[in-house]
Amino acid sequence: MKIPFEPNFKKGGGLITAVVQDIHSNEVIMLAYMNEEAYQKTLETGEAHYYSRSKQRLWHKGETSGHIQKIHSIRLDCDSDALLLKVEQIGDIACHEGYHSCFFRELKNGIVSYCFKQLKHPTLIYKK
Amino acid sequence: MKIPFEPNFKKGGGLITAVVQDIHSNEVIMLAYMNEEAYQKTLETGEAHYYSRSKQRLWHKGETSGHIQKIHSIRLDCDSDALLLKVEQIGDIACHEGYHSCFFRELKNGIVSYCFKQLKHPTLIYKK
Repeated sequence: MKIPFEPNFKKGGGLITAVVQDIHSNEVIMLAYMNEEAYQKTLETGEAHYYSRSKQRLWHKGETSGHIQKIHSIRLDCDSDALLLKVEQIGDIACHEGYHSCFFRELKNGIVSYCFKQLKHPTLIYKK
Repeated sequence: MKIPFEPNFKKGGGLITAVVQDIHSNEVIMLAYMNEEAYQKTLETGEAHYYSRSKQRLWHKGETSGHIQKIHSIRLDCDSDALLLKVEQIGDIACHEGYHSCFFRELKNGIVSYCFKQLKHPTLIYKK
């Protein structure tokens, strides 16, 4: 029997949430959104494409920084309204602030700390 | 210097996206939403509380199934509009369909498969 694998874009008004996990570190490195075009481009190219809500356009992750994400696999959740992308993160940096993961601040036992080091200063990532 | 840790609930109309990761398996097991009340309850009790969009009310994860989530740490992303919860998943089952993870379907190299086994049938989880 064919296993259904149909992301539901309608539920979120055309967008689906995509959680991004690094296949080497197993860290959750990013959260982004895809419209149907971004999802199809991702399948076609094997590189993560998202829909930028701020720029309101298709966004090829890494197009400026070079920090592209090579797709290892894509998972779909039980109610088909969220994706989990397992990726190889080129440059090891997913965050525009130069960290491996966008989730670099951590609250644990009442104490807030940085749980990642800044690998590169943003001005060096986005130099003209 | 104090590290800012202020989830932005306004940006998402009162809700923030919460990615949930199992501290033992490192798998992303769920995606849910929190309003400010759910976030505060989670901090107070050390157990994950969400806002159920379908039931439109505070949802103590595991209240019916017993599959509660003990908080290990909470991470906040760079633009403060997404949380990452590292949890201990009681019963090892996060999904209402009886799987360890809600992301139990996987597309890899053009083939869709189940990447987790169903540990318990839903009728056994939600028996009256």
